[in-house]
Amino acid sequence: MVGSCHSCDNCMNNLENYCPKMIFTYGTKYYDGAVTHGGYSNIMVVNEHFAVSIPENLPLDATAPLLCAGITVYSPLRFYGLDKPGLRVVGLGGLGHLAVKFAKAMGTNVTVISTSPSKQKEALENLGADSFLVSRDQDQLQAAIGTLDGIIDTVSAQHPLLPLLGLLKSHGKLVILGIPGKPFELQVFPLIQGRKLLGGSMIGGMKETQEMIDFAAEHNIKTDIEVIAMDYVNTAMDRLLKGDVKYRFVIDIGNTLRPSS
Amino acid sequence: MVGSCHSCDNCMNNLENYCPKMIFTYGTKYYDGAVTHGGYSNIMVVNEHFAVSIPENLPLDATAPLLCAGITVYSPLRFYGLDKPGLRVVGLGGLGHLAVKFAKAMGTNVTVISTSPSKQKEALENLGADSFLVSRDQDQLQAAIGTLDGIIDTVSAQHPLLPLLGLLKSHGKLVILGIPGKPFELQVFPLIQGRKLLGGSMIGGMKETQEMIDFAAEHNIKTDIEVIAMDYVNTAMDRLLKGDVKYRFVIDIGNTLRPSS
Repeated sequence: MVGSCHSCDNCMNNLENYCPKMIFTYGTKYYDGAVTHGGYSNIMVVNEHFAVSIPENLPLDATAPLLCAGITVYSPLRFYGLDKPGLRVVGLGGLGHLAVKFAKAMGTNVTVISTSPSKQKEALENLGADSFLVSRDQDQLQAAIGTLDGIIDTVSAQHPLLPLLGLLKSHGKLVILGIPGKPFELQVFPLIQGRKLLGGSMIGGMKETQEMIDFAAEHNIKTDIEVIAMDYVNTAMDRLLKGDVKYRFVIDIGNTLRPSS
Repeated sequence: MVGSCHSCDNCMNNLENYCPKMIFTYGTKYYDGAVTHGGYSNIMVVNEHFAVSIPENLPLDATAPLLCAGITVYSPLRFYGLDKPGLRVVGLGGLGHLAVKFAKAMGTNVTVISTSPSKQKEALENLGADSFLVSRDQDQLQAAIGTLDGIIDTVSAQHPLLPLLGLLKSHGKLVILGIPGKPFELQVFPLIQGRKLLGGSMIGGMKETQEMIDFAAEHNIKTDIEVIAMDYVNTAMDRLLKGDVKYRFVIDIGNTLRPSS
């Protein structure tokens, strides 16, 4: 996000990200009519309101994705009150691995839900999750029904909501961050019988984005990345489609960084 | 509701209505194994915790539906913070007409949304709503986009959610109270882009039910009813299917009341 109207209710409340005139970093018309090129620019002029101060101890490469994926998970953890000790859940992917790191740093218990049993070791040992649930395992699902007070759903592929709603306690919250190609099928009964909530969230305001970066610096939270040169992007796109990246590619636009792995 | 476990988190927090062992007034097994007959009984023994005190100034017939329809709309108006001055919306039917009355007594502005233009006079003149929106009128819908901060959706027939979500401001809440036969189709984009919330609610706890009844007594809120004798029930069912009742039939089980209309 590089611009907004500065005068609507959302802008007045540090929620520029929900301003109807919000300008995306990439592919949107800027105030002067030019199309934004965001992270693909090597030089960029930005209104100071939309610049974030990066503390010295954060490496630029592993911090870059925090300004999208990081704030995308940080903001709903705060807004939906999923930042308090208690059982929390996230799917595991690009957003998911950051959700685990932020949620753990906020002092919560984290269960990772995934379709792939193969991600268990990664979730528990490398990311520090407390438990792991295979969403295709009916026995595991059955045993966990009604046990979670919040789910951060980072899956952007088509998937059923009903089992996830079933995992929530009464008054639990399912926060959807991914946008599948087709509409979800929503059985409303769990919302009514258990007063469960369905919500979403999109990045965060500038104040909260700075807060997230400072929180990341304090708790040493970095994105797991693979730095690539610009001429690798087509290969990277192929690998991305296969899910073959842990967890974000970072393009070294200026050819100034050395690959971190 | 005539029973619950008295020991779970929900029961401990005056939310017996969300207790997994909650016993419905009708058609559920009571503690002793007998099936409850609720409002169709002429005599009933009930645990004092589940009895509500009816203030002298409330007539029993027009108050009876408050114990289901009334609390069903009162509780979410409070829980979702839709009880403050501001623009609120409800569908118009059995639950809807009570939602208008309670919401107006709470000091809010109320827009009634309905598929039938014919309900406009009723909504504005008889029920005291502030405005009326015909949901099939694209021009009216278009003009109202992004203007409402909450919708109490009382429609139990199949209907699209996307236009309703579109009417909400950012961070607005769509509270669903009806359960259509088929799942809803949910486009998740408004939840993400506008951080709009989707929730539900089911009756209320005993403490809140008493609060609702006392509030009704204070603000002189009564259900619009048609009192019928037991031998009229089959005709009443036929009329109910045609929507031909304003707004609730009340069966005079003991043949002690005179029809109020």
